Amino acid sequence: MLIARVIGNVVATQKNQRYEGASVMLCRQVTPEGKDMEYTCLALDSVNSGVGDTVIIVQEGWGASTASTGRPGAAIDSAIVGVVDYIDLL
Amino acid sequence: MLIARVIGNVVATQKNQRYEGASVMLCRQVTPEGKDMEYTCLALDSVNSGVGDTVIIVQEGWGASTASTGRPGAAIDSAIVGVVDYIDLL
Amino acid sequence: MLIARVIGNVVATQKNQRYEGASVMLCRQVTPEGKDMEYTCLALDSVNSGVGDTVIIVQEGWGASTASTGRPGAAIDSAIVGVVDYIDLL
Amino acid sequence: MLIARVIGNVVATQKNQRYEGASVMLCRQVTPEGKDMEYTCLALDSVNSGVGDTVIIVQEGWGASTASTGRPGAAIDSAIVGVVDYIDLL
Amino acid sequence: MLIARVIGNVVATQKNQRYEGASVMLCRQVTPEGKDMEYTCLALDSVNSGVGDTVIIVQEGWGASTASTGRPGAAIDSAIVGVVDYIDLL
Repeated sequence: MLIARVIGNVVATQKNQRYEGASVMLCRQVTPEGKDMEYTCLALDSVNSGVGDTVIIVQEGWGASTASTGRPGAAIDSAIVGVVDYIDLL
Repeated sequence: MLIARVIGNVVATQKNQRYEGASVMLCRQVTPEGKDMEYTCLALDSVNSGVGDTVIIVQEGWGASTASTGRPGAAIDSAIVGVVDYIDLL
Repeated sequence: MLIARVIGNVVATQKNQRYEGASVMLCRQVTPEGKDMEYTCLALDSVNSGVGDTVIIVQEGWGASTASTGRPGAAIDSAIVGVVDYIDLL
Repeated sequence: MLIARVIGNVVATQKNQRYEGASVMLCRQVTPEGKDMEYTCLALDSVNSGVGDTVIIVQEGWGASTASTGRPGAAIDSAIVGVVDYIDLL
Repeated sequence: MLIARVIGNVVATQKNQRYEGASVMLCRQVTPEGKDMEYTCLALDSVNSGVGDTVIIVQEGWGASTASTGRPGAAIDSAIVGVVDYIDLL
């Protein structure tokens, strides 16, 4: 899993039926200290996250699709599975 | 999932039977702002996308093969699952 | 699998139900000689590891979720599956 | 999936039984224009490709093992699933 | 799959039960010509490889765990599935 910040959302009317009703969020990876990194990805929301939230993203198909749609096998490889309150660094 | 633009398609007559009738599209990853990135990949189409479209690509075998052929376990690791209308950036 | 050191843990109250009761650890990859690398990731603990431990992390959804929650299909792609005592280098 | 050129094959007598009778090909990734890239990988052949062919490689365990041995769950993460005739670039 | 050389093994007494009795080998990726690369990883042995051997590593959870423990779903994402005798380069 990686830490990211939600920076936008994606609007797509022509899409796979498994995406109906799901929010596709644009996320940018951040360091543990919260600094922006280069990597961005799309992830389906499963915890009602919002733009600006620091989130936990899981990147594995089976888990991601089950988490975000309640069914395995959906056409999903990344899901937001938690909103980070804070990180206890050593 | 990542954002990409369809830049071509691949013609292959000698191929795995699971690919029969499917369109293998050549895609180039783009930034959220739509700028070309280095990374290119092949993806099976599942939403009737065309060359020039900005699309959502899922990169996970189970989901990708189910999305593009309706059956799991096909020899596919990437599928186009949506055509992007626009992206709401923060 | 990769070698990493546990450097913190993540607190997230708003999260997927599969995470209830699980510890999400922040880990930094280290070289075989124990030097810090750039890459950091989140992993669920399955062996009672603690901050400062050198650990083995598995990064694959099915195995990771089974290891850390005892059930497949959880929204997990990385798990701590061992605490390294030492490495016998050639 | 990615585009690669077959550049050799690997001989291994001491190997997992699932590999019996299969050809392990050494492949180098190429750009859509056919230029060599840095990345090389091993892939099992499922379409009778030969050294010098430009091929489509799938990199996902379930699909790759089903494609190249007809059975899921084999110890395989990459398979050659097509020989490219040509690429229609935009 | 990738080509690597076994450079050590990892001792971990506190570990997931699926690892009992298995050898966790430290491996360094090598080029087709046998030159050391930067990338190192841990892999479970399934073919009685030894330190110094050039090996084939599969990096996918289902195949890797089946190959090295005979059961799917183990907490494993990389397994040594062959010892390379030689590579026929074009």
